[in-house]
Amino acid sequence: MPIPGPGYAITARVEAPASASAAGDLAMAVGRVGGVVTAFDVVEAAAAHVVVDISCNAVNETHVNVITAALEDLDGVHVRKVSDRTFLMHLGGKLEVQSKVSLRNRDDLSRAYTPGVARVCRAIAANPADARRLTIKRNTVAVVTDGSAVLGLGNLGAAAALPVMEGKAALFKRFAGVDAWPVCLDTQDTEEIIRTVQLIAPAYGGINLEDIAAPRCFEIERRLRDLLDIPVFHDDQHGTAVVVLGALRNALRVVRKKIADCRIVVCGTGAAGSAIIRLLAAEPVADLIAVDIDGIVHRDRPGLDENLRSIATRTNTRNLRGVLADALVGADVFIGVSAPNVFGAGEAATMAENAIIFALANPEPEIDPVVAHQHATVVATGRSDYPNQINNVLAFPGVFRGLLDAQACEITDAMLRAAATAIAEVVTEPNPSFIVPSVFDPAVAPAVAAAVRAAATGDPAAAGDRPEGGVAMGGAPRT
Amino acid sequence: MPIPGPGYAITARVEAPASASAAGDLAMAVGRVGGVVTAFDVVEAAAAHVVVDISCNAVNETHVNVITAALEDLDGVHVRKVSDRTFLMHLGGKLEVQSKVSLRNRDDLSRAYTPGVARVCRAIAANPADARRLTIKRNTVAVVTDGSAVLGLGNLGAAAALPVMEGKAALFKRFAGVDAWPVCLDTQDTEEIIRTVQLIAPAYGGINLEDIAAPRCFEIERRLRDLLDIPVFHDDQHGTAVVVLGALRNALRVVRKKIADCRIVVCGTGAAGSAIIRLLAAEPVADLIAVDIDGIVHRDRPGLDENLRSIATRTNTRNLRGVLADALVGADVFIGVSAPNVFGAGEAATMAENAIIFALANPEPEIDPVVAHQHATVVATGRSDYPNQINNVLAFPGVFRGLLDAQACEITDAMLRAAATAIAEVVTEPNPSFIVPSVFDPAVAPAVAAAVRAAATGDPAAAGDRPEGGVAMGGAPRT
Repeated sequence: MPIPGPGYAITARVEAPASASAAGDLAMAVGRVGGVVTAFDVVEAAAAHVVVDISCNAVNETHVNVITAALEDLDGVHVRKVSDRTFLMHLGGKLEVQSKVSLRNRDDLSRAYTPGVARVCRAIAANPADARRLTIKRNTVAVVTDGSAVLGLGNLGAAAALPVMEGKAALFKRFAGVDAWPVCLDTQDTEEIIRTVQLIAPAYGGINLEDIAAPRCFEIERRLRDLLDIPVFHDDQHGTAVVVLGALRNALRVVRKKIADCRIVVCGTGAAGSAIIRLLAAEPVADLIAVDIDGIVHRDRPGLDENLRSIATRTNTRNLRGVLADALVGADVFIGVSAPNVFGAGEAATMAENAIIFALANPEPEIDPVVAHQHATVVATGRSDYPNQINNVLAFPGVFRGLLDAQACEITDAMLRAAATAIAEVVTEPNPSFIVPSVFDPAVAPAVAAAVRAAATGDPAAAGDRPEGGVAMGGAPRT
Repeated sequence: MPIPGPGYAITARVEAPASASAAGDLAMAVGRVGGVVTAFDVVEAAAAHVVVDISCNAVNETHVNVITAALEDLDGVHVRKVSDRTFLMHLGGKLEVQSKVSLRNRDDLSRAYTPGVARVCRAIAANPADARRLTIKRNTVAVVTDGSAVLGLGNLGAAAALPVMEGKAALFKRFAGVDAWPVCLDTQDTEEIIRTVQLIAPAYGGINLEDIAAPRCFEIERRLRDLLDIPVFHDDQHGTAVVVLGALRNALRVVRKKIADCRIVVCGTGAAGSAIIRLLAAEPVADLIAVDIDGIVHRDRPGLDENLRSIATRTNTRNLRGVLADALVGADVFIGVSAPNVFGAGEAATMAENAIIFALANPEPEIDPVVAHQHATVVATGRSDYPNQINNVLAFPGVFRGLLDAQACEITDAMLRAAATAIAEVVTEPNPSFIVPSVFDPAVAPAVAAAVRAAATGDPAAAGDRPEGGVAMGGAPRT
């Protein structure tokens, strides 16, 4: 049962007969059919009529039509126009490119452009490493997609993926002062994607792969890591894995269990699931079981592809077989990045005491969170309307801030684990409803950045302090 | 003889004995060796000594050493540090990516990113043309290079070209509110360049090719124009040609000649020369002669490549043969985009009365401008330290502003000619020293944009007025 949200916010311009009850009548009409009124602005008031802008949240397009009809049904009321505030916000795109240098006069031009710029070009030609000091490469990340797995919407292609990449870039800037730029590739051929990213790489200090379908995303990431001398990070994999590991650390603190004593079930072996399994496999987990649509992953299961074979070798030391329900019996932790409603109260009841359930399928979780709470001590989802939202925004801005400040050439699992721990430690007193910080907590990105920088430079002191070089050269605002 | 300029501006921090004449002594020492002092700031003043920052313009690195030595030679003076202001300006790069939408709270996130953004993605998937309305494609241009012909420096490669592309992007924003982004390609293979630009095109409303060597640039541009549904413009070709044609229109007004009566010699058949010839060939020029390093281009010259064959068919109706000196006899106009000092006073004297000489090789023109003035009525160069600078900045920002506002799918010669005329008409009373407007004249880009938009939409009214759609959707500041 979806609820009205700001993602579907509309403003209806309505003409109504002037009367003492006009405003109340209109608001009640919207409320009766489930719309949530968020603002009410009188645009025009005459003797006989008023014109008002009613802003409200709706569920979907059908619901908007229901709301409009409810208003029109009122005596003498006419809906002039319905605007969709999400679309209005997107008009003209969400990003702009700004010059950081002023170009007021001829002297400015002579330095920022010809003839002065020629010396900067020659300096970089002589010493390519200077590109990280004297160009946007210092602070810039490419957000690369082929549009093959856009949000939960599937294969929409490059152009339709652009609004997501723009939003991602806006978040990079908002939370960590990173300049990110959308690269939407009009191909879904693995070799072409790899080669294109390689060819555009000179301008960037890092590559963030986004919304590229599995299993193609694994090869693209692996090959690009080998080819490039800048870090390559697939957010759907590693961003999710980092936040899950951070949340898990705090959830375990809440239930007073050690990871070394835990049986953990990961449901889903796509981009996110595979990366979560990889990070967890490096922890001393007592028992780690992967489950996908074909059941429990074990070494002898027929038809394993390269990714599943790799998972099989890292997990399931007991060589358990069966379905999700078999895996859940006695499990301390369930982590789902799979599909809606794959289990219910019955299976949840078979889990260990003080169970932890992360049901991250979006928008419909693997188990109804309310049901999950009846059997588990800590429940997390990917949704913003329940406590403990597992949101990648907690990871990627700070991760790249740290990578860029360290001028890192690669990204390692040690950096990812350090980032996870940093996210967890922002919450000083975790409780069942508070295992991850708010995405708006300004402490998160700097803490993640410091942890990544320390791991990248091998300098634990860096975790507590920004290196002077970064301040002098970055010029990027920190939030 | 190069002169000190702001492109080589330094600041020397100098410690000197405190005395009434300290400041004067230091400034005089710099001036004696040819440095031009632009600022003098006292940083520290004690009883026995002062510390001052002397900012001055120099010629080159050797000159900086000479200036430093001249200061050190003074009694008791010590130069603590010499900073290069051009490099300081480039630290961290010259561009940043800004979000145009605010991300203050959860509601903002819900609209700019998930879940709201999903509806925008679906709308574009259903109607790809909406990408020009709902994404950065509306106002964004890719500045694409392979680094093969960076300024006059030659083949420096992708990374070393980045400072130029950043500068170009900054100019796009400064002069026309266009969001431009550097795309520096780590390949110089024609096929790879074409394919890569095609693959990244979904995010852009136009492609500006830059500093790509001839003849590769011709094929890349031609093929991309066929492949893409957005305009492709090679600034080194068409930007230069537009400004040359605009300047020529005003120069002809000054000397009261009609283009139909003129004999015009174009020296240089690279990117700029070929484009100038193409635009001029569409004008009713009495006689148009192309000359390159092998002499006059004529149909029977052996070894003509595709580009030169095309030039030969459009020019030289008299089938003249010989060298530059032969072409210049009786010529009304010389346009050089070739090499330093290819002719002198003797050849200039053979030109027609009231000759026009555009000697655009940079930084050393085809003929010393002072010598040229003894024989020609109007002289233009590519340099900022002589009157009549032919500067592409007069064209490209306005050209793309017009193309984006018209949502143009291609660029035509008619648009380029309209842009040239618009530049010329900004100068209401041309004289021998004023045939093009200042690059800082705020009337230029809007006039060029209006002319291009009118040519693109076929609506002459658009030339005088911005269409409402552009205002509503662009959101880009106009300067």
